[in-house]
Amino acid sequence: MSLLVVGSVALDDIEAPGGKVEAVLGGAACYFAVAASYMAPVRAVGVIGNDFPEEHLEFLRSRDIDVEGIYRADGATFRWGGRYHDSMNQRDTLFTELGVFEGFDPDLPDHYRDSPYVFLANIHPGLQTNVLRQANAPVFAAMDTMNLWIDTTRDDLLETLSLVNGLVINDEEAQQLTGESNLVRCAEGIRALGPQTVIIKRGENGALLFDAEGIFAAPAFPLETVVDPTGAGDTFAGGFMGAIARAGDTDPETLRRAVISGSTMASFCVEDFSLDRFRELSHEQIDERFEAFRRLTRF
Amino acid sequence: MSLLVVGSVALDDIEAPGGKVEAVLGGAACYFAVAASYMAPVRAVGVIGNDFPEEHLEFLRSRDIDVEGIYRADGATFRWGGRYHDSMNQRDTLFTELGVFEGFDPDLPDHYRDSPYVFLANIHPGLQTNVLRQANAPVFAAMDTMNLWIDTTRDDLLETLSLVNGLVINDEEAQQLTGESNLVRCAEGIRALGPQTVIIKRGENGALLFDAEGIFAAPAFPLETVVDPTGAGDTFAGGFMGAIARAGDTDPETLRRAVISGSTMASFCVEDFSLDRFRELSHEQIDERFEAFRRLTRF
Repeated sequence: MSLLVVGSVALDDIEAPGGKVEAVLGGAACYFAVAASYMAPVRAVGVIGNDFPEEHLEFLRSRDIDVEGIYRADGATFRWGGRYHDSMNQRDTLFTELGVFEGFDPDLPDHYRDSPYVFLANIHPGLQTNVLRQANAPVFAAMDTMNLWIDTTRDDLLETLSLVNGLVINDEEAQQLTGESNLVRCAEGIRALGPQTVIIKRGENGALLFDAEGIFAAPAFPLETVVDPTGAGDTFAGGFMGAIARAGDTDPETLRRAVISGSTMASFCVEDFSLDRFRELSHEQIDERFEAFRRLTRF
Repeated sequence: MSLLVVGSVALDDIEAPGGKVEAVLGGAACYFAVAASYMAPVRAVGVIGNDFPEEHLEFLRSRDIDVEGIYRADGATFRWGGRYHDSMNQRDTLFTELGVFEGFDPDLPDHYRDSPYVFLANIHPGLQTNVLRQANAPVFAAMDTMNLWIDTTRDDLLETLSLVNGLVINDEEAQQLTGESNLVRCAEGIRALGPQTVIIKRGENGALLFDAEGIFAAPAFPLETVVDPTGAGDTFAGGFMGAIARAGDTDPETLRRAVISGSTMASFCVEDFSLDRFRELSHEQIDERFEAFRRLTRF
């Protein structure tokens, strides 16, 4: 079943111990869409500038992603630059140039509006609500957010939270949102705000799912070499939502498998710069790693 | 089958957001022994001073722990004081008074020497080797260590490592020991030093087991309230080694269940100060939590 994602489309400069790349395809919507495209028909919403290379759109189309909702505006594409250190756990943002993303005002193509599954990647919560209201009663809508919105647009954020079924958020943001340091209490606090399915992402420490059934803990896949962690959280969300859209339900078993699906896609993402790992990635490789997660956790 | 542990026996002062206790039972050997005692006959080796309350020995005996190897020396028992902050992830050591622990020179009671399973808790690696050499070819010997020995007695530590089958170590120490930040590489580096079974403890982020079969990842049990994290790593090791001693083998399935057993015992440990949680803990409660770990990780 169709899965709509709205979020940033970007050109990234990334420096890491393993190399340096410039103006590569990035942005939450792209990472999400490519990961989810292995499991469900994806409809992407975003904005690009005059400078956005056609080849990146071609790559998205090659993954059967509907890019009609990615519109071109006059100006420069959103640019982000970051540098990772040896440990890969911390990064410095070198620059952020919003460009056309600053005036992002998404208007869903008509055929997007019936999407049963919706993911609102990290953008201003007012825009998230705007997109959600353009959709015709999705079956399951989830969102991400960031420290900036928690700090500066809390009321807007609380409104969006009250409208969605799920939140996919990292641990520090969950703590900031709720004022709780304990993650179990964080999740309880978030569920009281609206979303009944809460996923707390913990980077190399895996992810926790909180739902009506209880708690599910997934490890991150132990990798010997991490090249570029950029987009890991967004590919996690893409794998998670893609698995739900494929299953067509949000039963506890589906949600748990979806978390492993998200972890699987994130584990591939970090193995190369940008979305490059997905350029040759097969369904068979994805299935193999999903099964490796079973071996990793079975007792 | 019998399980020998050598390590510190201490009286701890602990301050945490939930309260403050003084001169409570502590020390790696005690935490380990009490956790393991639910699964195997435990023989403890340690030293106490004139001031060590008889009631603490009585508690250990009530858990069927053989305390003949805990000898009384003239002087004060090892004292440690620590303070935890709100997040529980960091603690300040307020004081360390070695007392009789400084002259600790363990001499195994004769009936201890045939112990098939041996755990060398965190003490000077020279003492660890000394104890190991007094044992008659144990089936499986494992050890812990700490930053101090990695820094100051590296050659002694490398000798001990070359003699044991397993190492149970926390993530920062594993990184310090090997000079690698990536934990998969840390484990490979450690296995090249001797122990073929490596467990990297990550506190609230769970534990990783590396063995001939591959990697196993266990979460920490998500708890809403953590009272006192002191001894969590030692009760983990106790639950791990206890499960191995009970099974009587080190097959991959046994090691994986043993990691969950360790995680189970650690999850109880942190629910109260000192070893208090174990004063009333039943086998049924332990089995229930072990099964809760299945629900937490099954997909």
